Amino acid sequence: MEGMLRFALSFALLSTAFAATPALMPLPATVRPAAGKLNLDATFKAALVSAPDARLDAAIGRFVVRLSRQTGIPMLGLKGAAPKLRVDCGAAGNDYPTLGENESYTLDVTPESASIKAPTRAGALHALETLGQLVTLGKEGFEIPAIHIEDKPRFPWRGLMMDSARHWMPLEVVKRNLDAMAAVKLNVFHWHLSDDQGFRVESKRFPKLQQEGSDGLFYTQDEIRGVIAYARDRGIRVVPEFDIPGHTQAWLVGYPELGVNPGPYEISRKWGIFENVLDPSREETYAFLDAFFEEMTALFPDPFFHIGGDEVEDKQWTASPRVQAFAKKNNLKDAHAIQAYFNQRVQKMLTARGKIVVGWDEVLHPDMPKNIVVQSWRGQKALADAAAQGYRGILSYGFYLDHMNPAAFHYNVDPLSADADRLGPAEKSNILGGEMCMWAEYVTAETVDSRIWPRAAVIAERLWSPAGTRDVNSMYSRMTAVSRVLEWTGVQHRANYAPMLERLAGGRPTEPLRVLADAVEALGIGPRAIGNRYTSLMALNRLVDAARPESESVRALELAASKFAADPKASAAEAAALRRAFSLWAANDARFQELAVENPLLEELKPLSRDLAALGTAGLTLLDGLEKGQPPTAAFIAEQTREIARMEKPAAELNLAATRPIKALLK
Amino acid sequence: MEGMLRFALSFALLSTAFAATPALMPLPATVRPAAGKLNLDATFKAALVSAPDARLDAAIGRFVVRLSRQTGIPMLGLKGAAPKLRVDCGAAGNDYPTLGENESYTLDVTPESASIKAPTRAGALHALETLGQLVTLGKEGFEIPAIHIEDKPRFPWRGLMMDSARHWMPLEVVKRNLDAMAAVKLNVFHWHLSDDQGFRVESKRFPKLQQEGSDGLFYTQDEIRGVIAYARDRGIRVVPEFDIPGHTQAWLVGYPELGVNPGPYEISRKWGIFENVLDPSREETYAFLDAFFEEMTALFPDPFFHIGGDEVEDKQWTASPRVQAFAKKNNLKDAHAIQAYFNQRVQKMLTARGKIVVGWDEVLHPDMPKNIVVQSWRGQKALADAAAQGYRGILSYGFYLDHMNPAAFHYNVDPLSADADRLGPAEKSNILGGEMCMWAEYVTAETVDSRIWPRAAVIAERLWSPAGTRDVNSMYSRMTAVSRVLEWTGVQHRANYAPMLERLAGGRPTEPLRVLADAVEALGIGPRAIGNRYTSLMALNRLVDAARPESESVRALELAASKFAADPKASAAEAAALRRAFSLWAANDARFQELAVENPLLEELKPLSRDLAALGTAGLTLLDGLEKGQPPTAAFIAEQTREIARMEKPAAELNLAATRPIKALLK
Repeated sequence: MEGMLRFALSFALLSTAFAATPALMPLPATVRPAAGKLNLDATFKAALVSAPDARLDAAIGRFVVRLSRQTGIPMLGLKGAAPKLRVDCGAAGNDYPTLGENESYTLDVTPESASIKAPTRAGALHALETLGQLVTLGKEGFEIPAIHIEDKPRFPWRGLMMDSARHWMPLEVVKRNLDAMAAVKLNVFHWHLSDDQGFRVESKRFPKLQQEGSDGLFYTQDEIRGVIAYARDRGIRVVPEFDIPGHTQAWLVGYPELGVNPGPYEISRKWGIFENVLDPSREETYAFLDAFFEEMTALFPDPFFHIGGDEVEDKQWTASPRVQAFAKKNNLKDAHAIQAYFNQRVQKMLTARGKIVVGWDEVLHPDMPKNIVVQSWRGQKALADAAAQGYRGILSYGFYLDHMNPAAFHYNVDPLSADADRLGPAEKSNILGGEMCMWAEYVTAETVDSRIWPRAAVIAERLWSPAGTRDVNSMYSRMTAVSRVLEWTGVQHRANYAPMLERLAGGRPTEPLRVLADAVEALGIGPRAIGNRYTSLMALNRLVDAARPESESVRALELAASKFAADPKASAAEAAALRRAFSLWAANDARFQELAVENPLLEELKPLSRDLAALGTAGLTLLDGLEKGQPPTAAFIAEQTREIARMEKPAAELNLAATRPIKALLK
Repeated sequence: MEGMLRFALSFALLSTAFAATPALMPLPATVRPAAGKLNLDATFKAALVSAPDARLDAAIGRFVVRLSRQTGIPMLGLKGAAPKLRVDCGAAGNDYPTLGENESYTLDVTPESASIKAPTRAGALHALETLGQLVTLGKEGFEIPAIHIEDKPRFPWRGLMMDSARHWMPLEVVKRNLDAMAAVKLNVFHWHLSDDQGFRVESKRFPKLQQEGSDGLFYTQDEIRGVIAYARDRGIRVVPEFDIPGHTQAWLVGYPELGVNPGPYEISRKWGIFENVLDPSREETYAFLDAFFEEMTALFPDPFFHIGGDEVEDKQWTASPRVQAFAKKNNLKDAHAIQAYFNQRVQKMLTARGKIVVGWDEVLHPDMPKNIVVQSWRGQKALADAAAQGYRGILSYGFYLDHMNPAAFHYNVDPLSADADRLGPAEKSNILGGEMCMWAEYVTAETVDSRIWPRAAVIAERLWSPAGTRDVNSMYSRMTAVSRVLEWTGVQHRANYAPMLERLAGGRPTEPLRVLADAVEALGIGPRAIGNRYTSLMALNRLVDAARPESESVRALELAASKFAADPKASAAEAAALRRAFSLWAANDARFQELAVENPLLEELKPLSRDLAALGTAGLTLLDGLEKGQPPTAAFIAEQTREIARMEKPAAELNLAATRPIKALLK
């Protein structure tokens, strides 16, 4: 919403942020706007004009339903009406989405009709999403501008990893995020299904995994199959991850015999890296895993199967005479070698079942075969090294959504840049793409969407669009628009803001809280993990959980302040917008403090609110002076700079983003 | 949201609207607050302590999940923790909810624990909902105040009728409304499943009903069974309505032989009363209905079965020689007698299958047996007359949500008042309760929730709470609070406001539109039906569709204005709140007009926005004068009164509610 601040901006100013045409994300490879528009009304109808394909037919049906929601226009597919959208699909393609399949499409919109041509169902699905993003409200109603688009992805592996282990993510959360993923042409859902804090899949072979390891919060196999079908129908592969041999404490609750120590174990309620780890020295461990993988490889059809492998603590292995004897016997000189041995055993089990192993950086070891895929979280160098050694890899470093970085930070990360520069073409082709990671220590079903979206759209663009697509202002402008379009997929990244603020306000009117919430940015796992205070039993219902990683309204004010500071006389609209925002901030604190009386959830925010008011006051002073041609005094600048430096220290795990427009004026 | 205006009100002022303790709706029969509070945290756990009852167990589980969402506190049911809530249910009661069953409960909350006692599952379900409404944010966190409640309903039939025929209501709309119904202790879902515009149930016996009569938008029998189970688990009966012999045009598309005229027929796209009607003169009609009811009575377990019977046009019957010959032969002197004959035949088919017929007023006829139930939509006199004749009845007159009346209007309607006053006790007991009606000419899946909620909670209170529960201010204050609690059931009455405004604004910042939207009220079917302009193919995406039937923020301003006008010196907080609101209105028009440029959906609102600004300016003038002890001049009063009279004429199917606080000041 960010209502109050956006309200404070003039439309002349803000419309630049909304006028970019077309506001597509990811930006297609080729876009040629044409003259005219296709009007949308209740006669709109879409038809598959090539060979029958029930799955694509259903997707076209869903597209029309969403178009109807997006515009409010009933689209009943009236008998006798000619189709306005014709989809021509060369071949249905694979039954299940396949890495590297042709995902290209062309899209033509004329004043008479729209037409999609794609060699495969995957391309046709992407084209429908592009078409949905093109819809605008024109002078005569909802319309799609005439256009010619040719498009195809840069990388074949464009993923989102969701952690359903640390906080439980109900099915509807998964499904709505799959819809939003499809909307920005992501094609891999990497599902982190087990960790120290939970084992989330029903195993019929080893039912104590979920019975003892999940607090009753797990997906049945039928539900898993439902998610896989749901994803498949949207052109998305599902890659399961069962993280071994570390991050396995939840396995050990039901099956303590898999651990190095005898147990008993409990589901971990803390975050971090734990000592408990599978025992690599006992054949029973491998027998268990073999039977487990037999079950899970049958459940998940994707040829790629993720075994985690990250952050293995060697303490128990080192302390265990049994493991040490085993290591000695097998000539394994350190924990990494032990893990490599373990991974080789696992890899053979999975290869025997037709699977390709994916693992985090740590699985790399000279003994591992070249057909595994490495997911780099530790840096671009790790990815480049792996690619140089002949391993295929995907980049996640730089794409960690839980770090709560601004969109521009992620936008600037490219799997083929930095350390990958030195690679030759064949080595570069080992880099399959990237995956953003939504680790779930500090998100719940309620907040996860706003940590994924809209920033995930920006990473999706990095992975789909031509390498030269790098203009940050264009990116922000399109992200702003697409964030709103994404709402019609059902994803809750914007919808959950208001109810969370209402909860914080204890049912009282939320507006003073909203003014503050719009002016701050939530911090990520780095700062929140300090002191290791959190547990999975703590409520994530504070302002840091409701606030966004990046304030849309502050960014607009920052742009206005820069323009105004550069040329005050030519920036009347910006000045008015800034004045409204600063006045709002300055007047907000009294109301906020009243709201915060005896409110335990707002208590920590009182200093922030005072600081926001001070920024508003300083901003008004600066505006007054600059409008009169009187630059601020050195003393004023020094004092404000000092104050801003103080305010830039996080409070209540929030950044006071509102410092930025003031800093721009002080320049 | 009503964000901008609520923001304009001071908290001192508004908190009165939120401080009412406890904010329960419907108000229980007996409430005794006690000292202390039960703190809520992650150790919260609930347990059924009486005989095992899987269905009640599941309901308790859902309650804990909702409590967790409402507070943001994870509640995993940790092993070893003692239950904080103990539910003691005397008997599971009936498998399917039953009219007149004991729905009473007692609820005790102490600082140590909460306890529910109920003779049946129905009562226990109601108690859980009361408990959820008691949750507040206290000084130390979320809590439930210590309290003793004894409660039971006044009427056994407390219903909501939803029309899924005129606009399609997807399953999720039905389900979320069932959750909200349960939250306010409604126990009958009357499902209007067929009408001229659509036949919405799968018939396996007569598949052309849904194939030809629904645009593909119908519920499968499995889905129907799912809804019935979903409702049953929440203590709600499902009464299906198949409206015959009028309102049947959608039946005739697939089965024209049922009509008086040969057809062909089309699904109606218009609203109103149509001539097409079933042919009562052919035995084939009754054979069809008999087979149809055989199928549908098996599908719907409730003993009550609604056959509609309203608004039968006699034109085709009168014009048809065949029908006239049949009437003569059977000594049926007019259309009403023909319908009574038809109804008797139908009633016999249904009675033979164990069903009790329910029909709208028009089914009443001296020839009809006394065991039918009459649903009165034409007035309280019709209901009283029926009750006096020995028929059981339910009141819907005065409970039509699509009329978009204020909550206070509905609150004032009592099934046992007005014409029912003259009835004796036995006759009064024929009045089973009431049902609110949500006819769907002017609502869609997107807007229906905001037309039902929160006003349905007020009618629910009328039907549940003791007759003496009549304080309108208390009602509004509790409705405001409960409206927010209802959000956690998943109902979208507040959530859909912002996206609809964003759609109207074409993706641009919505705030000037929101200021206007918060200050207007949407009109209902009466004014909208004038000129018969609407069809089911028209978009319901205008401000009239997003705006609420009653403006919460204007009501608060109205109260403030009355208080201020009565005693300006003692009303500083009110004056400040009014000043902020009026200033906002006065300044809003320039921004609104800018937003509305070349926006076809906002064009019709331009005069309203100008009027709102004028009201703001007038309000500021009045405030200035009254604060100085200078009452407005007679000329000013005359001019403003004239202007307000002009503004009170609806525009764009909206009322400018903002006139009301100005009128209060002018007094």
